[in-house]
Amino acid sequence: MLVNGKLGNLISIRDRGLLYGDGVFRTLRATQGKAQHWLLHYQKLQHDCAALGIACPDVALLSAELNDLLMQHPDGVVKLIVTRGEGTRGYAPSIQSTPARIWDVSPIPGYPADWAMHGIKARLCHLRLSQQPHLAGIKHLNRLENVLAAAEWNDPEIAEGVLLDVSGNVIEGTRSNLFMVRDGTLLTPDLSHCGVTGVQRERVMEWAAAHNMPCQIGQFGLVELLAADEMFLVNSVIGLWPVRELQDRTWSYHPISRQVQEWLNHALD
Amino acid sequence: MLVNGKLGNLISIRDRGLLYGDGVFRTLRATQGKAQHWLLHYQKLQHDCAALGIACPDVALLSAELNDLLMQHPDGVVKLIVTRGEGTRGYAPSIQSTPARIWDVSPIPGYPADWAMHGIKARLCHLRLSQQPHLAGIKHLNRLENVLAAAEWNDPEIAEGVLLDVSGNVIEGTRSNLFMVRDGTLLTPDLSHCGVTGVQRERVMEWAAAHNMPCQIGQFGLVELLAADEMFLVNSVIGLWPVRELQDRTWSYHPISRQVQEWLNHALD
Repeated sequence: MLVNGKLGNLISIRDRGLLYGDGVFRTLRATQGKAQHWLLHYQKLQHDCAALGIACPDVALLSAELNDLLMQHPDGVVKLIVTRGEGTRGYAPSIQSTPARIWDVSPIPGYPADWAMHGIKARLCHLRLSQQPHLAGIKHLNRLENVLAAAEWNDPEIAEGVLLDVSGNVIEGTRSNLFMVRDGTLLTPDLSHCGVTGVQRERVMEWAAAHNMPCQIGQFGLVELLAADEMFLVNSVIGLWPVRELQDRTWSYHPISRQVQEWLNHALD
Repeated sequence: MLVNGKLGNLISIRDRGLLYGDGVFRTLRATQGKAQHWLLHYQKLQHDCAALGIACPDVALLSAELNDLLMQHPDGVVKLIVTRGEGTRGYAPSIQSTPARIWDVSPIPGYPADWAMHGIKARLCHLRLSQQPHLAGIKHLNRLENVLAAAEWNDPEIAEGVLLDVSGNVIEGTRSNLFMVRDGTLLTPDLSHCGVTGVQRERVMEWAAAHNMPCQIGQFGLVELLAADEMFLVNSVIGLWPVRELQDRTWSYHPISRQVQEWLNHALD
């Protein structure tokens, strides 16, 4: 673990990341000493920092820290948090804050291989996401909605929960982005009012563009989701999970999901 | 500063307070070694912890820690944070987490005496609060909306910003609760969809009950706010600030605000 360039696992209790969730993060996968899609993650980090008015640490500095980390931990889930740092008391950010850089590594979770192969069982969460256009898309540290949603179930057979927003739009999984296939078109929710725009979501759209498959970003309700030909979830740690069950609907055939998964797993950087 | 009962100002980077804003807090004022309305604050803390499923630390333990702190710092703004503590990776809270207790003290801010006496200039924030009934009222650590709202202005003459929600309802100040007086009735926004229910808000309602003044909790728009006979803001640090200016509206006469302020400042515990 690395905090502001030094080995350590502690942070000031006056850091605004703790006080207000005033920061952003990335979660990426490292394999054999290489962090997958690091530059895509850095671009997202930069975008998210800009959205909150946090001065994003330089790519050279972060890349050097990441390399140090990977020397020690060549395989694992790497988490990078950038907070606004410490400041004067109160919500208003002070100009002189120096952002904090926090790195942590965890073992790669041992999900059943079957989930990626034959699909997962998902559930619909009761919690509805609120709509805040100023924070939508950003992978920020205000994640209580995700915590409450993930706390709704403890059946280990259920791999992920699907979230709707307060208007009933399908948005995402608690820790993943969501796609549908309908009549040869990829569909994915518009995330301009809530949700997180992950790197894997972008990569799926990149796949679609490269394979001449139309990809439509829009507002979709639960009825449309359940009527889809295929449904799958993505993030940087799990890769792609086809969904085989949600509510009363089952899917047993995932040809497009399979192609996308294949590409996501092998088209490394 | 006290972290889990020990002198210190550091917390683990794996604490869920940092990772997800998974915790709650209180801000109270200490004067001459006494924390004002500590038991009311503890009740709120207990309520907020319960709402998030965090095991609230015992009142005896927290009171003892507070007393230790007040021996060192008899006067100041005391902040108490209770997070869910550390856990396994991922949003879902683990049952075995031990909540973290974090205490900090800052000097009492030197606001111009004129603000409490003749009222403040307030502004209307552009940011609209999102609606999340599962988090409304709770003083949790997901405070990016407050941060963004407070970042909207830097004119030191403007003491506070007023927040509406996405539906246009008047909700609160960025760090205060809001009251209006209309025809001898106190009005304060319903906070069941967003906002924080502060201790001073409850004390104002207690004042109203004790003085036979009706107090109505409801949905009020900006038009109603600007048409009010009086408007004031409260929190545990500032006490009560009458508002003398908001947008094109000015108020120069605050008889009820004055009475409430007098009572809030003197009816100590």
